Amino acid sequence: MADRKLSRGGNVAVLGLGRFGGAVAEALLDLGYDVLGVDADPRIVQDWADRLTHVAEADSTDEDALRQLGIHEFERAVCGIGTNLETSVLTVLTLTEIGVPEIWAKATSVKHGKILSSVGADHVVFPETEMGERVAHLITGRMLDYIEFDDGFAIAKVRAPHGAAGRTLADLGLRTKWGVTVVGTKRPGEDFVYARPETAVPENAVLIVAGDTAKVEAYAAEN
Amino acid sequence: MADRKLSRGGNVAVLGLGRFGGAVAEALLDLGYDVLGVDADPRIVQDWADRLTHVAEADSTDEDALRQLGIHEFERAVCGIGTNLETSVLTVLTLTEIGVPEIWAKATSVKHGKILSSVGADHVVFPETEMGERVAHLITGRMLDYIEFDDGFAIAKVRAPHGAAGRTLADLGLRTKWGVTVVGTKRPGEDFVYARPETAVPENAVLIVAGDTAKVEAYAAEN
Amino acid sequence: MADRKLSRGGNVAVLGLGRFGGAVAEALLDLGYDVLGVDADPRIVQDWADRLTHVAEADSTDEDALRQLGIHEFERAVCGIGTNLETSVLTVLTLTEIGVPEIWAKATSVKHGKILSSVGADHVVFPETEMGERVAHLITGRMLDYIEFDDGFAIAKVRAPHGAAGRTLADLGLRTKWGVTVVGTKRPGEDFVYARPETAVPENAVLIVAGDTAKVEAYAAEN
Amino acid sequence: MADRKLSRGGNVAVLGLGRFGGAVAEALLDLGYDVLGVDADPRIVQDWADRLTHVAEADSTDEDALRQLGIHEFERAVCGIGTNLETSVLTVLTLTEIGVPEIWAKATSVKHGKILSSVGADHVVFPETEMGERVAHLITGRMLDYIEFDDGFAIAKVRAPHGAAGRTLADLGLRTKWGVTVVGTKRPGEDFVYARPETAVPENAVLIVAGDTAKVEAYAAEN
Amino acid sequence: MADRKLSRGGNVAVLGLGRFGGAVAEALLDLGYDVLGVDADPRIVQDWADRLTHVAEADSTDEDALRQLGIHEFERAVCGIGTNLETSVLTVLTLTEIGVPEIWAKATSVKHGKILSSVGADHVVFPETEMGERVAHLITGRMLDYIEFDDGFAIAKVRAPHGAAGRTLADLGLRTKWGVTVVGTKRPGEDFVYARPETAVPENAVLIVAGDTAKVEAYAAEN
Amino acid sequence: MADRKLSRGGNVAVLGLGRFGGAVAEALLDLGYDVLGVDADPRIVQDWADRLTHVAEADSTDEDALRQLGIHEFERAVCGIGTNLETSVLTVLTLTEIGVPEIWAKATSVKHGKILSSVGADHVVFPETEMGERVAHLITGRMLDYIEFDDGFAIAKVRAPHGAAGRTLADLGLRTKWGVTVVGTKRPGEDFVYARPETAVPENAVLIVAGDTAKVEAYAAEN
Amino acid sequence: MADRKLSRGGNVAVLGLGRFGGAVAEALLDLGYDVLGVDADPRIVQDWADRLTHVAEADSTDEDALRQLGIHEFERAVCGIGTNLETSVLTVLTLTEIGVPEIWAKATSVKHGKILSSVGADHVVFPETEMGERVAHLITGRMLDYIEFDDGFAIAKVRAPHGAAGRTLADLGLRTKWGVTVVGTKRPGEDFVYARPETAVPENAVLIVAGDTAKVEAYAAEN
Amino acid sequence: MADRKLSRGGNVAVLGLGRFGGAVAEALLDLGYDVLGVDADPRIVQDWADRLTHVAEADSTDEDALRQLGIHEFERAVCGIGTNLETSVLTVLTLTEIGVPEIWAKATSVKHGKILSSVGADHVVFPETEMGERVAHLITGRMLDYIEFDDGFAIAKVRAPHGAAGRTLADLGLRTKWGVTVVGTKRPGEDFVYARPETAVPENAVLIVAGDTAKVEAYAAEN
Repeated sequence: MADRKLSRGGNVAVLGLGRFGGAVAEALLDLGYDVLGVDADPRIVQDWADRLTHVAEADSTDEDALRQLGIHEFERAVCGIGTNLETSVLTVLTLTEIGVPEIWAKATSVKHGKILSSVGADHVVFPETEMGERVAHLITGRMLDYIEFDDGFAIAKVRAPHGAAGRTLADLGLRTKWGVTVVGTKRPGEDFVYARPETAVPENAVLIVAGDTAKVEAYAAEN
Repeated sequence: MADRKLSRGGNVAVLGLGRFGGAVAEALLDLGYDVLGVDADPRIVQDWADRLTHVAEADSTDEDALRQLGIHEFERAVCGIGTNLETSVLTVLTLTEIGVPEIWAKATSVKHGKILSSVGADHVVFPETEMGERVAHLITGRMLDYIEFDDGFAIAKVRAPHGAAGRTLADLGLRTKWGVTVVGTKRPGEDFVYARPETAVPENAVLIVAGDTAKVEAYAAEN
Repeated sequence: MADRKLSRGGNVAVLGLGRFGGAVAEALLDLGYDVLGVDADPRIVQDWADRLTHVAEADSTDEDALRQLGIHEFERAVCGIGTNLETSVLTVLTLTEIGVPEIWAKATSVKHGKILSSVGADHVVFPETEMGERVAHLITGRMLDYIEFDDGFAIAKVRAPHGAAGRTLADLGLRTKWGVTVVGTKRPGEDFVYARPETAVPENAVLIVAGDTAKVEAYAAEN
Repeated sequence: MADRKLSRGGNVAVLGLGRFGGAVAEALLDLGYDVLGVDADPRIVQDWADRLTHVAEADSTDEDALRQLGIHEFERAVCGIGTNLETSVLTVLTLTEIGVPEIWAKATSVKHGKILSSVGADHVVFPETEMGERVAHLITGRMLDYIEFDDGFAIAKVRAPHGAAGRTLADLGLRTKWGVTVVGTKRPGEDFVYARPETAVPENAVLIVAGDTAKVEAYAAEN
Repeated sequence: MADRKLSRGGNVAVLGLGRFGGAVAEALLDLGYDVLGVDADPRIVQDWADRLTHVAEADSTDEDALRQLGIHEFERAVCGIGTNLETSVLTVLTLTEIGVPEIWAKATSVKHGKILSSVGADHVVFPETEMGERVAHLITGRMLDYIEFDDGFAIAKVRAPHGAAGRTLADLGLRTKWGVTVVGTKRPGEDFVYARPETAVPENAVLIVAGDTAKVEAYAAEN
Repeated sequence: MADRKLSRGGNVAVLGLGRFGGAVAEALLDLGYDVLGVDADPRIVQDWADRLTHVAEADSTDEDALRQLGIHEFERAVCGIGTNLETSVLTVLTLTEIGVPEIWAKATSVKHGKILSSVGADHVVFPETEMGERVAHLITGRMLDYIEFDDGFAIAKVRAPHGAAGRTLADLGLRTKWGVTVVGTKRPGEDFVYARPETAVPENAVLIVAGDTAKVEAYAAEN
Repeated sequence: MADRKLSRGGNVAVLGLGRFGGAVAEALLDLGYDVLGVDADPRIVQDWADRLTHVAEADSTDEDALRQLGIHEFERAVCGIGTNLETSVLTVLTLTEIGVPEIWAKATSVKHGKILSSVGADHVVFPETEMGERVAHLITGRMLDYIEFDDGFAIAKVRAPHGAAGRTLADLGLRTKWGVTVVGTKRPGEDFVYARPETAVPENAVLIVAGDTAKVEAYAAEN
Repeated sequence: MADRKLSRGGNVAVLGLGRFGGAVAEALLDLGYDVLGVDADPRIVQDWADRLTHVAEADSTDEDALRQLGIHEFERAVCGIGTNLETSVLTVLTLTEIGVPEIWAKATSVKHGKILSSVGADHVVFPETEMGERVAHLITGRMLDYIEFDDGFAIAKVRAPHGAAGRTLADLGLRTKWGVTVVGTKRPGEDFVYARPETAVPENAVLIVAGDTAKVEAYAAEN
């Protein structure tokens, strides 16, 4: 691998190169990781051959096959298989048995997630559910983007309130009124500006606000 | 509807109550919206009967059926159908024809997304792809959570650097060294604390840092 | 291509060599065009290998495959795929993306036609519907052939009225009585004769009459 | 039936209400015929219930079922079934056995057409093939519409030649030069004008020309 | 072919080497014919390779394939395909088109048989129906074997009546009493004996009786 | 049953009312038997409801179901199921277990036949094979009909030899020359005539000849 | 339940009433237990309705359905589902979640067994594997029955050695020579006799011998 | 074979290498037999290639294939095919026809077992049923293991009764009270100890008890 790119990160095996697994693999590559992509479908493997550090066609539930690929020496593996519960669970079990230290896996339901944890997945991800929740906030039209960190702390991108243009953040007093903090401001086509109390809100600006989930939602609903 | 809950928001029709559509519907309900859920599978409709404002069993590609449900009078509709491109596209086309002002739709591939836009979807969402990218950042182990807003501005939850405990944020100088801003700090089991320059970093704290995507990634990679 | 036949026309790519696509391809060849036929089924490709200028086995939704065939340099393309809406729509979208200036596509329903137009088809054809309408006119037994041009102007082949044999067209006065024009007359086994007022209707002749759709239908219904 | 509409025509049974059969049925109704539509799919029968004189759900290969519907007393029947050769052939055979005087049937291939004729179809129609040929002429861009009557006589709608505007048809001399006859002229948004030698070609006009197929094609190719 | 066996008969092509076609082929070979066996399934072709004069793997509905095998020069062909009506009918049509003088075909229903005749089969056979009728006679226990020739003349193998042993056929008078003729007698393990009036019926003998179908059945029912 | 027809014969249960079973059932009815028809397909049962003494929809492998129909009291049963070996074998086993004295069954292969005998079938019939052999003799064109009784004794319907018209059978001497016996003669449209030595062969007559299989075949091949 | 039989044991829920689950259920009933049988197939439920204490048609992966049946109050449950890994695993997970204290489950492979243990099965059974091992011992012909307890201690039923008849067990000295103990002797049709040193081996007796697995096998192999 | 391992036993062919067949094959190998494993699935054959004496990919219903493998010279064969009744029965029939002296076969139902016996299986095994019965005894929690020999004589592993520790077996008097015999005692992690009257029951011991099935069950239920 070393002759291809100097890996700033470590290595990750991604099993199942569908939409989710493929997106994981590409983003990891951009972050400087060596990525081994594995899929049972030769056409998918062919499609990814030029884009990942290594690719292989293999049955991810076959322990011997994974060992021959050296996956037991990887630090992390991601199981991107989601449509077939049996293959997904057997893949994670196989990764557990060959001793991969950190296993991530995609689940399509709560029960699926529990089984994956039971057989050894360290982290279980629910793309459909998590994106569904995020999209609900955007649908309201009150926020331009939104993310809730898992401890009840949310950050949202919202339009500046009417009449805010030209006033300073201190003057607007959002923390006092709504309990939310403005992290930064941004105008279309321009760079993000770190928010200070004396920062004046530009015309047509969007604000990045942070705070307790309920307070961020309440602020967005009324402005 | 009015006799059930006082709707703070408006109304939204969600077509397809799978993982994604179901999560959208539940989150919208929590945000105070009236939600009409539609699915072709009577068992799924039955499962949701007690949880949404209204549910209906219908073929979402049948214009007459949607009109009888009054969907042409809704402000927004979400097409959560994703596995079958034909049904997904015909549903969005039908929503366009009956004149729903704002249409959201889930896509499973770039081409699928383009077709949805062509036939009238105002917003197209790619859960698998977007979650894949987000998970890649978490997999690195350098961040505890991560979100990139669509204009190159990212926010991440990271562990405080070694030796930071007890020092003030001003003293740490992360903005100077890395170009990132600390939005807040948090200790396990405690509330989030808004970050000021004089804030001292507690033991075992996590930091919420914001900034340009590249700078946030660079900071996380080295700390 | 030039070494095979001197192309009087331009070139056309036909994607999907079923009944419809095959008939398009053959007729274009007769009209002096170079035709590249593409199909995903190797047996169909084999069947057409000796009959078209070029044939290729390819997935018509694969942009790279179409580019390798040089289809982005064609002036026109015809999507003859009709049974599978997804493949049909993805093929037209791919043709749009690689920039083919003029795209024709076959549709099996009104909605299918709308989607094809949305993703870039310049002309959409409905063989089953259009032939059905034409056949209905022939079924009446009043016309031997019939075509309605899309602006309400129809032409029909009808038997000459009883007692017309030997009389001149001027004498018959069809334009006065029915508002239709006789374009020509023809006897079985003989050539078409251009109609002049002084033309005498032969025994057992058929007439080609033209005029407003409603008038042509009315004339045929009463004679 | 008499209580519904005064039938100017006779009655026709249409077996198979897909795209083709449905279009036949609707056009016959417009022409003043009583139409009995038959299909094996109850949903399709339901869809047509309000649009045809009579509809029935039945197996079109079941002689008893067709007799109970009174189809043996119909003057004409159309078999619109095309995707399943076995059902198509058995339907036509059944129509033959119960003695329908005139049977029309749709075929999807030359062999299919021969079998239909063998078991008693009086007229066999090939929508995909015939539309394919017609579309090929339109694709050339030289004609706006085109129809070839089955005896080598064609009619086409073409744009008037460059420089024709203002000149009379006699002056243009198309019959002399090309052997084609101008049947009429038409400007966008206006009525069709019957062509006389002294007719002046308007600006942006289209011409309806008639003549031998080869001459019409030759004329269109060069103008 | 001549180098393999001296053909006393002519040649026959058998298309479809299932139970029926295979039995036809083997019996014809025993009768001194050259037999070309054709099947679309390579395993079946392999099984018959050593048993017929020639075998070939081919699609029996493909006119070119049949011509390449020289079947247009055969005197007779048998279509043994029965389970798939479409393939059966297309095969017979293809045999008709390439001009085989005498075509036999197996049918599974009366309508199937009519279609086969319509497209050119000279002889249609119904194995299930004909064997069913024959077995019914054997089931009665009154006959040991039975065959009805198609003109109402039947032959049956029956046990000799009680008390017949030792008596002559003339004495038994079966023709007088029952209108049936004894063709021969036979004892288990011995040769058939031609019946003369003076022939004495042996112990435990079976009789071969012939006559009108109704009379043979009546005789068997009462003895 | 007695109120429907006076049963000259006994009763027979026919399980599986396909082509073979249906033909057995109808022929038995004509022979004066009471027939109970059983099939698992309600449509087939419905079709036979008016034609047999009794019909029932039942799973023929379900012992309780057969007992409720009273089949354990029948003298004979016929298993007409042939396409599915498992159902065929289980049906015969069930008939054996409930104690039907005489069991007939249709087989589609030699091994199938052996299994049926092993589980209790008293008589096994091979319609495809037996009809195939019979058809082979007819195909030769030398015989008009043919049947081989299972002890090497055959009967055939053949055309009278050239020059035989007007001569007596004694004069023809077929038994001397070929070892075959003429059982009777027949002219088209007339009754069968029992053959005596002094019988004169009419014009265009067919002969029914009997004898050893090999001799009958040899005679037919040379005349 | 109390009105049906006095339960000496406790209660057990058996989910999946196939061969394995059915045998478990019947044997538990014989042992004095109340048994609730659950299956998703209504026909199977019907078959068992008269044989178990209670039966129910339900989806065993549906927590609400199991709670409504009161299974959360059962002491033990058996998952007899084996052919579909997903249903099997989800059933065991559901049983774990509703808190059944003791869960037994059938597995079809080692990995399947591991997953079942991971999601909460207390005992996993491998019928095919265990029976395979037991049958292997019987196949040798050296033992008439055999069981290995899981700690390397086996018991086998073997024929008495040649010449043993009439001699006492002490005289035979099997413990000394082979390290196995004779537990008892038995003659066909008679009761088992507890073995004492002075017991004389009867004619044609079988011996029940116990001991270390290897010694029992060695003894059987040589006698 | 001799060059691979010295066969203490004979040879056995195992047809079908699924869970059951595979377990039989492995156990026989351990017992010193030569084992030929046959399966139709090349992947399964590949998996077993290194573990059995010989493996082969073949259709077990093909007599020629089995003969080429020399199976007609084997002393015993095991048919491990169970999911497909047709293949299972045809395999056993084929083994019977080629003359294997001793045939074992797995059945999935009572009727399946009867058919296997009918076509020649000497021993039929029902893994699901037999394991189900055994598991039922273990489920009671009263026994740690259990086996019923087929003549009503059972052996069970049970925990020693309360208060038994330190007392001798004679003192406990189980044969007098319950009619069961203690065969041996065992402590966890230690060897089995043959039971004598004077044997003292250790702490935490398990007992192996033998006797009539009913008595063993009664003892276990009360202790």
